[in-house]
Amino acid sequence: MTKTAQGAKKKGWRKAEIIAAAAECFMERGYHATKVDDVAARLGATKGRIYHHYSSKTDLFFDVHREGMARLFAAQAAVVCRGGARDRLIAMLQAHAEAMLTHHTYETVVAQGVQVHRFDQTTPEERETMADLIATRDEFEGLFKSALDAAIAAGEVTPREVSISVKMMLGALQWTLVWYRPRDGETEAERADLARRMVASVIAGV
Amino acid sequence: MTKTAQGAKKKGWRKAEIIAAAAECFMERGYHATKVDDVAARLGATKGRIYHHYSSKTDLFFDVHREGMARLFAAQAAVVCRGGARDRLIAMLQAHAEAMLTHHTYETVVAQGVQVHRFDQTTPEERETMADLIATRDEFEGLFKSALDAAIAAGEVTPREVSISVKMMLGALQWTLVWYRPRDGETEAERADLARRMVASVIAGV
Repeated sequence: MTKTAQGAKKKGWRKAEIIAAAAECFMERGYHATKVDDVAARLGATKGRIYHHYSSKTDLFFDVHREGMARLFAAQAAVVCRGGARDRLIAMLQAHAEAMLTHHTYETVVAQGVQVHRFDQTTPEERETMADLIATRDEFEGLFKSALDAAIAAGEVTPREVSISVKMMLGALQWTLVWYRPRDGETEAERADLARRMVASVIAGV
Repeated sequence: MTKTAQGAKKKGWRKAEIIAAAAECFMERGYHATKVDDVAARLGATKGRIYHHYSSKTDLFFDVHREGMARLFAAQAAVVCRGGARDRLIAMLQAHAEAMLTHHTYETVVAQGVQVHRFDQTTPEERETMADLIATRDEFEGLFKSALDAAIAAGEVTPREVSISVKMMLGALQWTLVWYRPRDGETEAERADLARRMVASVIAGV
């Protein structure tokens, strides 16, 4: 490894560490009440270390949001399904439910995302970044819309209003942010089991 | 009306006005970043006027939370249904969906409720109030559990894990807090229509 590569790796690692600490701070007290000082204190670092990577709290928030969305997309990219269109949609819901439970901290901050700047004066750059983040969410929802469209086209799911239906399915799974709390020592298998029971209820309807 | 009754009415009205302003402030910036001063500024009042009614920001937050829950219970109390157990459950979901859209501001603060004190040091009194609020939410969820139990017992809904299923149904409808924004001039009929489309998707399953 070259010195530059080592430096880049170290820098990358430090940035990931900052993002993780920031995610916890934003989750615990919300965007507005979190100070860059709080993130630094959590890392046992100086504010300067953070400002070396981030020019503002908003930039830091945006990176936590990006990481949260990246983890949700990664879970979808890993979905393997040999069944039909409906099976595929269910496998996607299962992967999403597990991701929501596993990345609870980041996804809590993602959910704060739109709310945070809803009432704020923002700079043109911030507005542009917000627009990007919202486009990324729409893209994510689009994965499920396509899968549901395909299942309806295949005659495997009864026709319905796709846009609203996807919002309801994802909302059901995402509301875990409010009632679910990760337990110490909780295993991946336990999370997968809870996710299965959640998805079974969503697909059962009423 | 006696002078005392007038005084009480005026006092009551003022308290409702304070709660409404506080709900907006908490929604916009979250519990931790909201100051009693912000609520006073929104009312064009002094901080003293608020401290006349509330000894702390936390007490004010609790009253917003209580009002939000009271509105959800009121919507359920108004449900009239002459059909069977499944029809009754659907009517309850419809009423809840409409209430979530109509009382968006209060319900946003209700959703912040548990999160807010999750990481805080709290006084014994605050812990007691939090326990009350959580009991009230459990009671609310209980209405839907009973209705779903009844529909399953009547053979009108396929058996499933009732507790998780209710969390999924309510979560689907409550996630509107994240994506729905009240429009100026939106009518009750428009909200009822959106609620119907939401409930239709929830009951359709996959």
